Amino acid sequence: MALQFPEGLKRQAAGLASDLKSAGFDVIISGDPCYGACDLALDTVTEGKADVLVHFGHAPVDDRPDVIFEPWIVDFDVEVLAQALPPLREKTVGLVTTVQHAHLVPAMEAFLASRGYEARVGEGTPRTPLRGQVLGCSFAAAKATGAREILFVGTGVFHPIGIALATRARVIALDPLTGTAQEVSAESLLRRRSAVIEKARAAWSFGIILSTKSGQERRALARRLATLAPGAVIITMREVSPDQILNLGFDCYVNTACPRLAYDDQVRFGRPVLSPQEFEILCGVRAWDDYTIDEIA
Amino acid sequence: MALQFPEGLKRQAAGLASDLKSAGFDVIISGDPCYGACDLALDTVTEGKADVLVHFGHAPVDDRPDVIFEPWIVDFDVEVLAQALPPLREKTVGLVTTVQHAHLVPAMEAFLASRGYEARVGEGTPRTPLRGQVLGCSFAAAKATGAREILFVGTGVFHPIGIALATRARVIALDPLTGTAQEVSAESLLRRRSAVIEKARAAWSFGIILSTKSGQERRALARRLATLAPGAVIITMREVSPDQILNLGFDCYVNTACPRLAYDDQVRFGRPVLSPQEFEILCGVRAWDDYTIDEIA
Repeated sequence: MALQFPEGLKRQAAGLASDLKSAGFDVIISGDPCYGACDLALDTVTEGKADVLVHFGHAPVDDRPDVIFEPWIVDFDVEVLAQALPPLREKTVGLVTTVQHAHLVPAMEAFLASRGYEARVGEGTPRTPLRGQVLGCSFAAAKATGAREILFVGTGVFHPIGIALATRARVIALDPLTGTAQEVSAESLLRRRSAVIEKARAAWSFGIILSTKSGQERRALARRLATLAPGAVIITMREVSPDQILNLGFDCYVNTACPRLAYDDQVRFGRPVLSPQEFEILCGVRAWDDYTIDEIA
Repeated sequence: MALQFPEGLKRQAAGLASDLKSAGFDVIISGDPCYGACDLALDTVTEGKADVLVHFGHAPVDDRPDVIFEPWIVDFDVEVLAQALPPLREKTVGLVTTVQHAHLVPAMEAFLASRGYEARVGEGTPRTPLRGQVLGCSFAAAKATGAREILFVGTGVFHPIGIALATRARVIALDPLTGTAQEVSAESLLRRRSAVIEKARAAWSFGIILSTKSGQERRALARRLATLAPGAVIITMREVSPDQILNLGFDCYVNTACPRLAYDDQVRFGRPVLSPQEFEILCGVRAWDDYTIDEIA
């Protein structure tokens, strides 16, 4: 069997592999970087190399008979949601979270009900199969709530900013591990992205990045975008790294791989890296007022 | 068509792709790192994505009907070989070079003959198809000369050190671009590698690195090495990076991918990375006196 771990769990690999080897299993570890279930190490199970891939820490984003998705749950006391109540303005609130906390959704709903709030929870979709689950590239569970106010329970600000852009709802983010609750706005991201688009106006050559990862390969989108500018060429990439961005020497890149790369990592790239929608704005086929966050359906 | 360039030629990609696009071709660039013909971007031509892959700058290491190998030759005036004559002790000398200079082998032979030297040149092999060509992982053309003294024409000291270890001959290296000639010895590499083996004696867990690159995947070797220690587990990796070496957390690694990774990049890795032969020495199944450089046949 092959084992795959996201970066934060890779340190478990040596011990677990050794235990499985002692128990008589033939074990191979996938050592490549992994940031999501969109990046399955399918090369370990092709051509009969391993019978099955055990992927730790993520829920499936698509259906694969030869992959076992092994959750890595992170518990917290749902009483921490009390910290998120003062910033809420509505009594009906959309509730969303990330994969490692999704098992606590029923307990969070019950807690909110006990305090007089109606929690609306979106059902699973093929890419986010758990109730109430969002990904950094899929906010369907937030949109499905139809709520004017959404409570995101999880760490970081990327998911709640994406939810704000995707839903236009007011978003409160609660970090369940620190108990910090804050209203999150998309304004600062929009200002930064507007500046990147302006910087890209001087560009002549555009590298349209096409991922070769299992759940990020948006070939039809890349082909359409490549028709929007004469100097646009499709570039296949597995890992989108600052080194490769620099070595390839294009004036500007358009990212059809993991949407977060453009938003989160712009500061690491020496060149403008636009989302598909931002490239459309640059090419005049989309209005700035129709700006939206990039999602993988 | 898909285009693939080694790192040093990647800057040619944007201009060439644009020219080909203007001429009516449907072009895709492989943007992943590439250091040799052992790392073909076959993912660009599988499932009918492109009809053909044009790989620049390297001679083939294996036969592929869907890949065109486009040479990138680097010329120099063969008179520069005069700089290498004073350090030579023999009148019969093995002559080897790297892919970008291999077209000059006949001119170099003629120059040496004109100065009274007999140049012996090894014929091509499947992995090094050009006469007199060596790779950093294959010194067959040097061994085939049977010469007691070998003249390597090319840049850097890795190839001549490898030749010295593989042939036990005296090796003179001439950089044809600077005109610098020097005798190259393997002593310092052997001292450094001995120290790395000693450092690895404290290790309990061993990650046996198995490359997924087209010309580096030595699966049978990796499986055999994994039987030599209880804490040894096979790890598949595309790019062997310091980040992944650190994240995976093994005490020591054994490299069955590009042999140069262990020899050249040890200083970048925070853990000992042994060659297959060094791991055999560590495990007591090979004597230090049988130390040899790792080659891919």
